[in-house]
Amino acid sequence: MIRPPLGIDLHDIDTPALLIDLDVMERNLQTMADFFKDKPAKLRPHVKTHKTPLIAHKQIALGAIGMTCAKAGEAEIMVWGGVKDVLIANQVVGREKIQRVVCLARHATVTVAVDDPVNVHELSQAAEATGAEVGVLVEVNVGMNRCGVEPAEPALHLAKEVLAAKGLKFRGLMGYEGHLVFKEKFAEREAACQRDIGRLIDTKGLLEQSGLLVEIVSSGGTGTAMITGMIPGITEIQAGSYVFMDGRYKSIEGVGERFDCALTLLTQVVSRPSPTLIVVDAGMKAITHEFGYPTVVGHEDMKVVSLSEEHGKIQLADPSVRIRSGDKLRLLPSHGDTTINIHDMYFGVRRGTLEQVWEIAARGKFV
Amino acid sequence: MIRPPLGIDLHDIDTPALLIDLDVMERNLQTMADFFKDKPAKLRPHVKTHKTPLIAHKQIALGAIGMTCAKAGEAEIMVWGGVKDVLIANQVVGREKIQRVVCLARHATVTVAVDDPVNVHELSQAAEATGAEVGVLVEVNVGMNRCGVEPAEPALHLAKEVLAAKGLKFRGLMGYEGHLVFKEKFAEREAACQRDIGRLIDTKGLLEQSGLLVEIVSSGGTGTAMITGMIPGITEIQAGSYVFMDGRYKSIEGVGERFDCALTLLTQVVSRPSPTLIVVDAGMKAITHEFGYPTVVGHEDMKVVSLSEEHGKIQLADPSVRIRSGDKLRLLPSHGDTTINIHDMYFGVRRGTLEQVWEIAARGKFV
Repeated sequence: MIRPPLGIDLHDIDTPALLIDLDVMERNLQTMADFFKDKPAKLRPHVKTHKTPLIAHKQIALGAIGMTCAKAGEAEIMVWGGVKDVLIANQVVGREKIQRVVCLARHATVTVAVDDPVNVHELSQAAEATGAEVGVLVEVNVGMNRCGVEPAEPALHLAKEVLAAKGLKFRGLMGYEGHLVFKEKFAEREAACQRDIGRLIDTKGLLEQSGLLVEIVSSGGTGTAMITGMIPGITEIQAGSYVFMDGRYKSIEGVGERFDCALTLLTQVVSRPSPTLIVVDAGMKAITHEFGYPTVVGHEDMKVVSLSEEHGKIQLADPSVRIRSGDKLRLLPSHGDTTINIHDMYFGVRRGTLEQVWEIAARGKFV
Repeated sequence: MIRPPLGIDLHDIDTPALLIDLDVMERNLQTMADFFKDKPAKLRPHVKTHKTPLIAHKQIALGAIGMTCAKAGEAEIMVWGGVKDVLIANQVVGREKIQRVVCLARHATVTVAVDDPVNVHELSQAAEATGAEVGVLVEVNVGMNRCGVEPAEPALHLAKEVLAAKGLKFRGLMGYEGHLVFKEKFAEREAACQRDIGRLIDTKGLLEQSGLLVEIVSSGGTGTAMITGMIPGITEIQAGSYVFMDGRYKSIEGVGERFDCALTLLTQVVSRPSPTLIVVDAGMKAITHEFGYPTVVGHEDMKVVSLSEEHGKIQLADPSVRIRSGDKLRLLPSHGDTTINIHDMYFGVRRGTLEQVWEIAARGKFV
């Protein structure tokens, strides 16, 4: 990639290029921060979306208490970028990865999720040997049926094992309602959150009755942040996608109205084989489509009809529209996180002008 | 990524890790090279799959006449890695990209595809100004209906424009039968290739009757290489996926029998929430699924049932199977090209031992 000079018009950036509208991003960050300003729950945004220390520091400056990460590799990038408190909201498994996390805990506050007593034992041994302290949340299955122990007794049992393990600090519970974040109707989503997060809160109560201090109860995604974040007992919200939004989240009631889409892919027409078809230079290697094809920003009369590896086909409703090879269009990804995961660079633009080029430092850091 | 020491057992590589079985890869390279040894058509393998100069040089050592690339960025990586002859099998559009390609042509033989007279003019101006010569193929639509001019007269017309343009060398025609490469039945695929590639060969005839020298006629993917490569008049085949194969190509008659799958994703169990469910540490950010979910190598009793961003859920037919957190499994991607496009490194293993770690140098080079 030839890095273009700053200050140029966004249409002079070579394609495909992943653009951030910085004004929109900053508004999104502010909107979520404002919501949590007077709430008991605090924001610990997930870096899975932006993957970039500078944006993490912007979130922290607006009140975030630290960052949530998916993997050890993401946590390293954040800590190396100066973030002082990271939660790895997943199980850290395997000798090498445990060692990395334990060593990282000498340089920042590091907390991980567990759902297995053998894993607790391995973490404990490594932490003790390294002389580090690793924070631990017991992951509770709140209905997504992925990882996590069942609520109530199984969670209490594992929490006690953590409490007894050297090198580890039991800090609380985590339960991610990922099965609810995309429920389109707000009222349905709210009712389901009350029901499912209720299991997490009940489990917290059980632990406290058993004499355990539950400092953290972590949950929530962008689709549920403003619901789960209001439930008494929840202390942290992990929302990440709100920073940029994407096509799928924009359609979710109660979310789409509050946040705007900051992330688009600048692409270029490479061929117009017929009056009603153009081909652009972005395919599956530049934009993902597991949540549906991207949409063409500002052109409701244009429709993405297929993506091959390096090409997107766009159907034109109006055969008389003037568009030709070399013209540029912006695509709105349906799924920001996986699209960003393909790119090395963000092009930050403000009012149509290139202001920053940022490395996506945690891109591909899934190890 | 912590680069592991060479010589370790593949199961000691941290996960997710993209493995190449080097024995299988070398057999695949040999099989395709052997096929083309005595054919009039030669192999110019596509780098879209492996994206790696060293593998390109292995293909050239086995008889390939150069490399096919999708984008200017891929061509740069190949030329900088010592490849002397590259075809960019797509339109190169936009001032900046044209300049890059023209300048690259001072350092290697560079050929591009065109389907638009304005683009021919822009390429010509840039080549002349730089004092470079850029080879040009006229892309013909053989039925995929993506880019390309129509066969016969429209192709002849554009070819004459190229011939007249300074700085450009008209070299021939290209037509990619991408709409046929996945036709499962061999006989159907063969008949369709004869019909559609026939248009390309007829166009070649028309150009020659008009006094144009048609040095190159380029076509073919992994699914059609051994069909299209036998059609008289075809001079080059662009197949790329055969180097590693993938789940989708493995199911294609006449292809799956000749090539084996060399590429797998090593992944690790991070949770076993129930006797019939395990969760592994590879999701959509480590393996793609636009052609279907990956399969679990060597375990027909295990089935990938969903991928979220960082997790894969695998259903176990046998609840009594002994597998737990920390155990490793290999997944066969359904689509190699886009999966490789996410990863920074290949882990080359031979008979279970790590032999090489290779940078995927052209990863994300879609600009």
